[in-house]
Amino acid sequence: MKTTLRQHLTAALLLLAGAATLPAQTGNVGDPLPSWNDGDARTALITFVTQVTTSGLPTFVAPVDRVATFDNDGTLWSEQPIYFQFQFALDRVKTLAPEHPEWQTQEPFNHLLAGDMQAFLAGGEKSLMTVLAVTHTGISTDEFQQVVKEWLATARHPKTGLPYNKMVFQPMLEVLAYLRANGFKTYIVSGGGVEFMRAFAQEAYGIPPEQVIGSQGKLKYELRDGQPVLVKLPEVQFIDDKEGKPAGIQTFIGRRPIAAFGNSDGDRQMLEWVTAGKGPRFGLIVHHTDAEREWAYDRKSPIGTLDAALDEAAEKKWTVVDMKKDWKTIYPAPPPPAPAPAAAPAPVTPPAK
Amino acid sequence: MKTTLRQHLTAALLLLAGAATLPAQTGNVGDPLPSWNDGDARTALITFVTQVTTSGLPTFVAPVDRVATFDNDGTLWSEQPIYFQFQFALDRVKTLAPEHPEWQTQEPFNHLLAGDMQAFLAGGEKSLMTVLAVTHTGISTDEFQQVVKEWLATARHPKTGLPYNKMVFQPMLEVLAYLRANGFKTYIVSGGGVEFMRAFAQEAYGIPPEQVIGSQGKLKYELRDGQPVLVKLPEVQFIDDKEGKPAGIQTFIGRRPIAAFGNSDGDRQMLEWVTAGKGPRFGLIVHHTDAEREWAYDRKSPIGTLDAALDEAAEKKWTVVDMKKDWKTIYPAPPPPAPAPAAAPAPVTPPAK
Repeated sequence: MKTTLRQHLTAALLLLAGAATLPAQTGNVGDPLPSWNDGDARTALITFVTQVTTSGLPTFVAPVDRVATFDNDGTLWSEQPIYFQFQFALDRVKTLAPEHPEWQTQEPFNHLLAGDMQAFLAGGEKSLMTVLAVTHTGISTDEFQQVVKEWLATARHPKTGLPYNKMVFQPMLEVLAYLRANGFKTYIVSGGGVEFMRAFAQEAYGIPPEQVIGSQGKLKYELRDGQPVLVKLPEVQFIDDKEGKPAGIQTFIGRRPIAAFGNSDGDRQMLEWVTAGKGPRFGLIVHHTDAEREWAYDRKSPIGTLDAALDEAAEKKWTVVDMKKDWKTIYPAPPPPAPAPAAAPAPVTPPAK
Repeated sequence: MKTTLRQHLTAALLLLAGAATLPAQTGNVGDPLPSWNDGDARTALITFVTQVTTSGLPTFVAPVDRVATFDNDGTLWSEQPIYFQFQFALDRVKTLAPEHPEWQTQEPFNHLLAGDMQAFLAGGEKSLMTVLAVTHTGISTDEFQQVVKEWLATARHPKTGLPYNKMVFQPMLEVLAYLRANGFKTYIVSGGGVEFMRAFAQEAYGIPPEQVIGSQGKLKYELRDGQPVLVKLPEVQFIDDKEGKPAGIQTFIGRRPIAAFGNSDGDRQMLEWVTAGKGPRFGLIVHHTDAEREWAYDRKSPIGTLDAALDEAAEKKWTVVDMKKDWKTIYPAPPPPAPAPAAAPAPVTPPAK
């Protein structure tokens, strides 16, 4: 009994000590989360990391078990007005259209090519799957990676004018780096396509391909000109969303994470699964509240609906980030412009006579 | 041109240097492969590792890309007279039988309980799937892990009398450790069940759950007494064998390994996929040639058939291990017995009168 009491006291003292050494002003040298304003969300995250990494505390977690999972769309990057992967598919239809003159009159392609999204969406899931099939399958995994990279290099978001892979959240990049600096292994667990995300996850987030879990089509192994390739088939193997997220975590990682980050009802089951484990746990929801710098949406949004998970967050004490209040910046600052070349000497004009 | 020629010369010199520093006698202090006899297989493996880890060589591979994949049954542990996972299933049927009196007269359970394997096998795949369903599904992933661990702790192999997880190949344990010491990430890629292998892979091989890829059933997320669990369903999600192995590698790892180790026709496509990549590649097949210390089988064996892959190994220059010739030992030596208690003083016998 005595030992337990002392352990708890030690924990409390160490936590207080940890909290006391938080930089009073963010932006200080050494601040791991410079884009976060002081507030409950920031404090909760730092407290959790202190708890699990301070040896001697009863809440200490061995590095091998420090696993954190992140949703992608709406959690690590923006997702409006439509999921970026879907924008990729639409752009890809336009790129491929010259090879498919029949699409001009064939549903659902004709609606897309005419820019009539309402007519397209009226086709429901069937239209969507048709578009995903022609834009995401029938090519090898290597070719697909290349196509996605070319799209990221050239496409621009209609509202911000930014490349899509620059619309990642600076405060979340800091969370990823902060967790990794504290011995965490960081995974993406997303409803998005695994091959799509792997085309940029390493560069954008520092997350290597083997730590990206997503929805998957079946792959077919075959020899082409004697060389083996893996061809993406238009058949679903696994949908990594809602109940699929805990299943995907178990199938790919085989151990239960201790922290999970999401932003929508699609992340509910992942947060439940992660935070129901024994020992210290951390669940966080990014609430899109900033109509000016990003988008404001939650319960009624067709993309990234946050409704039941918002109620559950209150009940289960998950941390809710108020983007407008908690985040100093949304996207990373662009790299500084290259220094201007030395000014050319002013043209010499002959003195007026 | 000059640089390229010089690079090749440097490579050749460094390789010669590397080969020259191989211990002349195995078993020396610092020998990474003490259970391997000198021979082509050992030399090929050490040459490959030297090639990819020596900076400055054109064959150098960055640590992040040093990925090696290993089949499990017949490559890392024995697989005769039947796959150990199947023996687990048979034993599990016997354990569960008292709760299922109907099995005494119900096919295929009646044959198993009567020990009539021929009658059981006559039922083909349907019988097998029925047994896998009752022994591997309907319980949570956590419960299943526990059941496998209990079986490993108590079951003994009929021929060797050893626990099944002690029938791992000592020379392959050395290969795993040698590769990891050289910056490789080691994965299992097996037709066996992923949850079955994860129950012992960390302890037996030092391979953590997230680096075990195997065949998978679907998982169902549900709440039991308010607590989330993942229940194993009797539906196949993915078969990680033959063509499935390259697909599993791509799906889970997302990059192509540079070395692969197998022992049967089920590993052909994995070895093709891995060794067809650019740069230095290594493929190895364990050929079971030791009827005395293990088992001898290849082209005609119903378990672990090695036929087409053996022909392809010759054609593609994969390394073939002759177990009888190349391996000094098969299984790890048992731990030394605990020191005997200090000898009790000899009983004092009264001197004969």
